[in-house]
Amino acid sequence: MKVELGVGAKNCLYPLPTTLVGTLVNGKPNYITIAHVGIMDLESVSLGMNKRHYSNEGIKVNKTFSINIPSTTMVKETDYCGLTSGKDHNKADMFKTFYGKLKTAPMIDQCCINMECELIKTVDFPNHDVFIGKIEATYCDEKVLTDGEVDFEKVQPILFVMNDQSYYSLGKKFAKAWRIGKELNK
Amino acid sequence: MKVELGVGAKNCLYPLPTTLVGTLVNGKPNYITIAHVGIMDLESVSLGMNKRHYSNEGIKVNKTFSINIPSTTMVKETDYCGLTSGKDHNKADMFKTFYGKLKTAPMIDQCCINMECELIKTVDFPNHDVFIGKIEATYCDEKVLTDGEVDFEKVQPILFVMNDQSYYSLGKKFAKAWRIGKELNK
Repeated sequence: MKVELGVGAKNCLYPLPTTLVGTLVNGKPNYITIAHVGIMDLESVSLGMNKRHYSNEGIKVNKTFSINIPSTTMVKETDYCGLTSGKDHNKADMFKTFYGKLKTAPMIDQCCINMECELIKTVDFPNHDVFIGKIEATYCDEKVLTDGEVDFEKVQPILFVMNDQSYYSLGKKFAKAWRIGKELNK
Repeated sequence: MKVELGVGAKNCLYPLPTTLVGTLVNGKPNYITIAHVGIMDLESVSLGMNKRHYSNEGIKVNKTFSINIPSTTMVKETDYCGLTSGKDHNKADMFKTFYGKLKTAPMIDQCCINMECELIKTVDFPNHDVFIGKIEATYCDEKVLTDGEVDFEKVQPILFVMNDQSYYSLGKKFAKAWRIGKELNK
């Protein structure tokens, strides 16, 4: 039987990958936990970030940011970056920071995937800035590759669900996209 | 060791939930597989849809769409909706369709979560329309609730990874968000 969900429970577009977004704010690297992310077209991504966050200013000033994918082993540090503000805490101290082509998009060495992005558009919502970035370069740890492709079973991303405010692991690969459905094509 | 990924492999913001997007096109319900989705703010979501798709016209005309979350048991039908076009196939015949408040956003009864959305903005990309919708109502099968909350371990969503063109299952809940990181707060 179908039931209609109440106001706070309406959004069920989960799970989404939990990321650490890197910015340079007042000349210092800062990292914030963001899981309200999305893919726009093949090379562009979005971040839905509450306007109160300290990181937003860094993105607006530099027009760059990074997206770092932490593994489940980093769940405490990842969650901590969502509990604390760069106004009060030097969160970057927990990580080794490196830079790529963009110079103002700090990235976390301990995360096995790092994307540096150029801001191409901002969509304004009442309480959120939605930053849309074009991915300029992506780095990954060699150990998460299988036959030259990123292997998410090795990455072990942290998946976020708002409904029960929980982190989930990734399960098993069980079918090929653009393939399994052909069995119905008769 | 970090390696830089090549052009086609740059986007690693995965996995994302595989959805079936419902539209009314030329007066008939149609469903298409979309996993390039995102959350903008708490009540708004995005769909990145190639402009060649038949469904885009329905969203532009009606200014509504639905997002249906299929379970792993529906992987063949889900993949099939991404392999075939509504121009040539009546894909809605595979499902039982129902309507909610919006009247022009057909939803799939067999999917355990259904969100009906009103189009509030379209962001134009070279080859993609990014449709941003406000969730007007969400329905779910009673059996996927635990203590009144949607339980994604019961939903068993189909997670999509472009890098290896594969579908993954969801793993286990292993930590609480806004909680586990407090252990570092000393």
